[in-house]
Amino acid sequence: MALNPAYEAIGKGFVQQYYALFDDPSQRPNLVNMYNVETSFMTFEGIQLQGSKNIMEKLTSLSFQKINRLITAVDSQPMFDGGVLINVLGRLQTDEDPAHAYIQTFVLKPIGTSFYVQHDVFRLALHDSCDDDPPHAYSQIFVLKPLGGSFYCAHDIFRLNIHNSA
Amino acid sequence: MALNPAYEAIGKGFVQQYYALFDDPSQRPNLVNMYNVETSFMTFEGIQLQGSKNIMEKLTSLSFQKINRLITAVDSQPMFDGGVLINVLGRLQTDEDPAHAYIQTFVLKPIGTSFYVQHDVFRLALHDSCDDDPPHAYSQIFVLKPLGGSFYCAHDIFRLNIHNSA
Repeated sequence: MALNPAYEAIGKGFVQQYYALFDDPSQRPNLVNMYNVETSFMTFEGIQLQGSKNIMEKLTSLSFQKINRLITAVDSQPMFDGGVLINVLGRLQTDEDPAHAYIQTFVLKPIGTSFYVQHDVFRLALHDSCDDDPPHAYSQIFVLKPLGGSFYCAHDIFRLNIHNSA
Repeated sequence: MALNPAYEAIGKGFVQQYYALFDDPSQRPNLVNMYNVETSFMTFEGIQLQGSKNIMEKLTSLSFQKINRLITAVDSQPMFDGGVLINVLGRLQTDEDPAHAYIQTFVLKPIGTSFYVQHDVFRLALHDSCDDDPPHAYSQIFVLKPLGGSFYCAHDIFRLNIHNSA
């Protein structure tokens, strides 16, 4: 099958349609139609799932109600079986949790005149390079007061720079 | 062709091998062997390239010499043509520039007993949600001094929380 020249529009259209369902908890169960019963793979934060039943069990177990999503980039490429590879970079805030960058990759497989999701990889862009915790910016303020020929620390304020809005 | 059960080891092995060549400027030109002359696609920060010649022109035009790379996650999935889908989340510092999160997706296509990179998508995880600039944390310190029944700002220190190491 040839490369699909409409890959860019297919990628953008799919992402819009997929997240419209995902971000509305009452619509989320309808995502089942995007996956194949057997031949869809998902890796969700490192957890590997196969088949629409297992994937939907995971997606409908997510308990947050409110999703605030910003899409930064959608990079699509045509594939040689007529499918489309889609890479999404965005920011995501669920309920009142801090916003995080995330990445999601989809491989769409053509089926008749439509597509289904054959591969789906989701990761929050959290990095564990400092022990097991994600690295964070911090700020610390010292106010030194003179004492004899030296100083003492009269005030000390420490804060991790964790932001709870996008 | 069947799913390759060794997809996890293939993904991790490929990532190690690819970045060993990429991160050494004297070895980087050897990446040409990873791509096909015609059927490899790359999207580098939104720029679309096809074929090993165009891809290598881009990769060898990158002028930084020193690369400090931390891999946070490698998520791999087997594909139905015997290939492997690989998603990498990491942090990258080039020369003395600030470190940034990045994502890179590879689709490996089997060729004989080996693989080549059929699809390659690279993005720094920079977000343009605040005008065109990436959003940044900041800290600001005020020291208020009493003045009559009120206060004035005796000290004011402002700093964007931009970090130049991983």
